[in-house]
Amino acid sequence: MRYPLHLQNLIEQLKGLPGVGSKSAERFAFQLLEWKEERLYNLSTALKEIPEKLKACNECGGICQESICPYCSDEKRRNSALCIVRSMKDIFAIESTGEFKGLYHVLKNLLSPLEGIGPEKLGLDHLKKRVEELAIKEVVIALDSTLEGDATALFLKEELAPLEVEVSRLAFGLPMGSSLDYVDGGTLAKALLGRGQF
Amino acid sequence: MRYPLHLQNLIEQLKGLPGVGSKSAERFAFQLLEWKEERLYNLSTALKEIPEKLKACNECGGICQESICPYCSDEKRRNSALCIVRSMKDIFAIESTGEFKGLYHVLKNLLSPLEGIGPEKLGLDHLKKRVEELAIKEVVIALDSTLEGDATALFLKEELAPLEVEVSRLAFGLPMGSSLDYVDGGTLAKALLGRGQF
Repeated sequence: MRYPLHLQNLIEQLKGLPGVGSKSAERFAFQLLEWKEERLYNLSTALKEIPEKLKACNECGGICQESICPYCSDEKRRNSALCIVRSMKDIFAIESTGEFKGLYHVLKNLLSPLEGIGPEKLGLDHLKKRVEELAIKEVVIALDSTLEGDATALFLKEELAPLEVEVSRLAFGLPMGSSLDYVDGGTLAKALLGRGQF
Repeated sequence: MRYPLHLQNLIEQLKGLPGVGSKSAERFAFQLLEWKEERLYNLSTALKEIPEKLKACNECGGICQESICPYCSDEKRRNSALCIVRSMKDIFAIESTGEFKGLYHVLKNLLSPLEGIGPEKLGLDHLKKRVEELAIKEVVIALDSTLEGDATALFLKEELAPLEVEVSRLAFGLPMGSSLDYVDGGTLAKALLGRGQF
């Protein structure tokens, strides 16, 4: 027994969402069948309007509604610090801490030879050009602590060396509120090495 | 730091999908930002066309592309058996077993006083009319084995009693391939009570 064509097609498309496999996509699709026409129309419109209403900033790659984002157009943020993140979403996470007041740079990709993502996909020329034009003094690398994130961070550090900028990376250590029992050895080692005066 | 309005709006809408909370909706939304325009357009269109392309059958409430579904219009299926399910999706699950060749009836709701779903929302009149008009001899209740499913099954059994149809319900017992270690007491008791000749 196969689903009707339109339903199958919808399920296939929903499977493109992160972490959504066949089962979840089917649940979503059948739930959508029960939505009122107006609600479907609203979601449909919101999706269609994404490219128009949520552009990537030409400068930093963050989200913006114009061609340049509120950070890049904010003179006060030109304080010679540039934070490199992997995705637009990370900008919101960092902003919500209130601890960084400089500019951002979205990398979009992390080095991943297995997925065929080499250095040429990191947009290094654009990054270097920004570092020079904005007279950046400190580059804060805020990439994931994964194999790909670590490799990319190291690579960026080397590439940025000739530009004579300070390159820093987010600290490793215990997550706030965590119990030592549940912290893995690698994290604990980093936390010990990075210990500071109390 | 708040998301841009359009993004917030999109996230709110995605939260309407089953099992999707704020975190998942955000992940979905940020993933959607990276989709190509054509891909967004396709999903947008698929959603908008749901009401037109995937109607509920006027008779049984199952999915169909016309006003009447392939089961209801199939003369061979008028074999006096009617299977009551909660949702369109369950029809596909039952069909894929190949063990039922009769007609279906989608209830849409299960009795749930807490959610304000009383007997008036079960569409009893339509169900009774179908049972009579189709000269149904056996009604198979294929509802969830939950509090709501059990209550609804009992209620339907009583309501259908005057129509002199045989009312059966899916068997309870061990799931195929299960180990006794992991089967709860209630299921084991039902499996014992329902034991059959081997």
